[in-house]
Amino acid sequence: MPLEALTADLTPAGLHYLLIHYDVPFPDHASWAITFDGFERPLRLTLGDLRARPRTSQPVTLECAGNGRALFESRPLSQPWLLEAVGTAEWSGTPLAPLLRDAGVPAATVDIAFAGLDRGIEGGEEAGYERGLPLAEAMREDVMIAFEMNGQPLLPQHGAPARLIVPGWYGMAHVKWLDRITALAEPFEGYQNTVSYRLREQQEEPGEALTRMRVRSLMAPPGLPTFPERDRMLAPGPTTLQGRAWSGSAPIERVEVSLDGAATWSDAELQPAPAAHAWQRWTFDWTATPGMHDLACRATDATGATQPMAADPNLGGYANNAVHRVRVTVTAGS
Amino acid sequence: MPLEALTADLTPAGLHYLLIHYDVPFPDHASWAITFDGFERPLRLTLGDLRARPRTSQPVTLECAGNGRALFESRPLSQPWLLEAVGTAEWSGTPLAPLLRDAGVPAATVDIAFAGLDRGIEGGEEAGYERGLPLAEAMREDVMIAFEMNGQPLLPQHGAPARLIVPGWYGMAHVKWLDRITALAEPFEGYQNTVSYRLREQQEEPGEALTRMRVRSLMAPPGLPTFPERDRMLAPGPTTLQGRAWSGSAPIERVEVSLDGAATWSDAELQPAPAAHAWQRWTFDWTATPGMHDLACRATDATGATQPMAADPNLGGYANNAVHRVRVTVTAGS
Repeated sequence: MPLEALTADLTPAGLHYLLIHYDVPFPDHASWAITFDGFERPLRLTLGDLRARPRTSQPVTLECAGNGRALFESRPLSQPWLLEAVGTAEWSGTPLAPLLRDAGVPAATVDIAFAGLDRGIEGGEEAGYERGLPLAEAMREDVMIAFEMNGQPLLPQHGAPARLIVPGWYGMAHVKWLDRITALAEPFEGYQNTVSYRLREQQEEPGEALTRMRVRSLMAPPGLPTFPERDRMLAPGPTTLQGRAWSGSAPIERVEVSLDGAATWSDAELQPAPAAHAWQRWTFDWTATPGMHDLACRATDATGATQPMAADPNLGGYANNAVHRVRVTVTAGS
Repeated sequence: MPLEALTADLTPAGLHYLLIHYDVPFPDHASWAITFDGFERPLRLTLGDLRARPRTSQPVTLECAGNGRALFESRPLSQPWLLEAVGTAEWSGTPLAPLLRDAGVPAATVDIAFAGLDRGIEGGEEAGYERGLPLAEAMREDVMIAFEMNGQPLLPQHGAPARLIVPGWYGMAHVKWLDRITALAEPFEGYQNTVSYRLREQQEEPGEALTRMRVRSLMAPPGLPTFPERDRMLAPGPTTLQGRAWSGSAPIERVEVSLDGAATWSDAELQPAPAAHAWQRWTFDWTATPGMHDLACRATDATGATQPMAADPNLGGYANNAVHRVRVTVTAGS
């Protein structure tokens, strides 16, 4: 998502970030169905079945766990995201929990596994993309199977015909191109939970699975970009800095802006959240004076978590929620 | 556009390539209008005015002039495209020529200039994106002002509310976020025609302006990708290779496939063009045997132009239509 789209409440399709592990699958929507495995009753749901169930809609901010990876000093080998791996869309579909109850969750269930149709070779083995979610998370009221994004049927690259939405979690949990939902009496041991998407410093450590998005704020770059360097040039005078802030754990309580390279900070105006897991807009009035300025923003959520100046490096380059710094040159004026 | 989308006749929004010089503008559609300058009669057209005029639709293949840039050995400093900067969409709008006639084209006109709302700093100067087109090209029957893509209103990043479509030309001609159309009695001398988008080996040479897309074919990568290397792994046995071919100058007459590193070639099956400037599908049946294979494809158009093994290097890294080579490892089977 180009960062000028931080000015929009909802990110248009095609500007929302995408992280696609393998090729985009193009399933035939007429024959597609989700199969439920390991439940008390067999269940197979077509797109028509999903659309006939109770409908819900909510704006949700999705961020890749690797967002900011390319800003770590020792850059891990994976998708080299700077800060654009985020977006907020209105997702519509049907809640997951009633579906699981209809299928009958066996008493011993601890995890629900979600498998997509996307297939590739990972860690030397052929596999489909598959993620496990603890039962308590899967039963949350706001977790849904979505078949529309911003009022339109899902586009192929967003998981058509239907995908999982787990508000508050990093993107890896929102499995696209849903094919199979499995109730497990043991913790899910698939590659995407036990090898990938873990916070650790060494391959030998078990580390910790990534779950909820860390607190973060981003600033829409002020002024005009140069091509192709994309430096920012701004006319002098009054201007309003703006951006968005979010956290997977709690509402944002405070956004601060620095105009002097993160030496001193002032409070920005913060708007309330439009929904529990959608980003919050912030603004900050500034009278820009000629010269080079190192701007920055940082957010704090209701748990007290705040963005660090530098995030702890880790093997996968995940969860880099460091303060966002933006250099802008204010021109001498005309 | 991820190359697996070569399997689709029309590229879904969000998979179609984008080359955006500056920030994406988000104009207010209610107050937006195109202004005609330098014509015999003043004309200002709102989106409602455009929609009230005769409507036309056509599938058109768009390719960035820089597609393939990153495959030149000496890589120029600009957008490092591999081969994904292409897409084919159904564009709907109103033909341009009747609009120009309504405005009254002065007899001395040689070029029509098209200015977008996107602004940035290029070559040290603040400027909006602007391109000139020779009058004869602007008056072609199939040149249009498009306000829909694949049956939906244009998305912001595709030039909403309306953009130019010049079938057959590289992407730089299809000006997005149209703001102003100007009749010029002298050749257009703006940056995007006279400095950028020229074929030349040295900055001092005037070089030649880029116009129509060179003949090219691409292959959808067979088999499954590895993550994150994106090597291709294929099961042994019969398989159908497939892809698309296009040229801005003439229909494609022939597509050939090589299974041995471009040493020998065989004809592929070629489908007719669905429209004058939309890509053509090709297929090639192959029985894959275990081992590593260097596949390739090349197209020839009705002017006799064919893809070279290596394109001539040039300062901007443009128009690299070299033969597409795809390495695939066929596994031993199971």
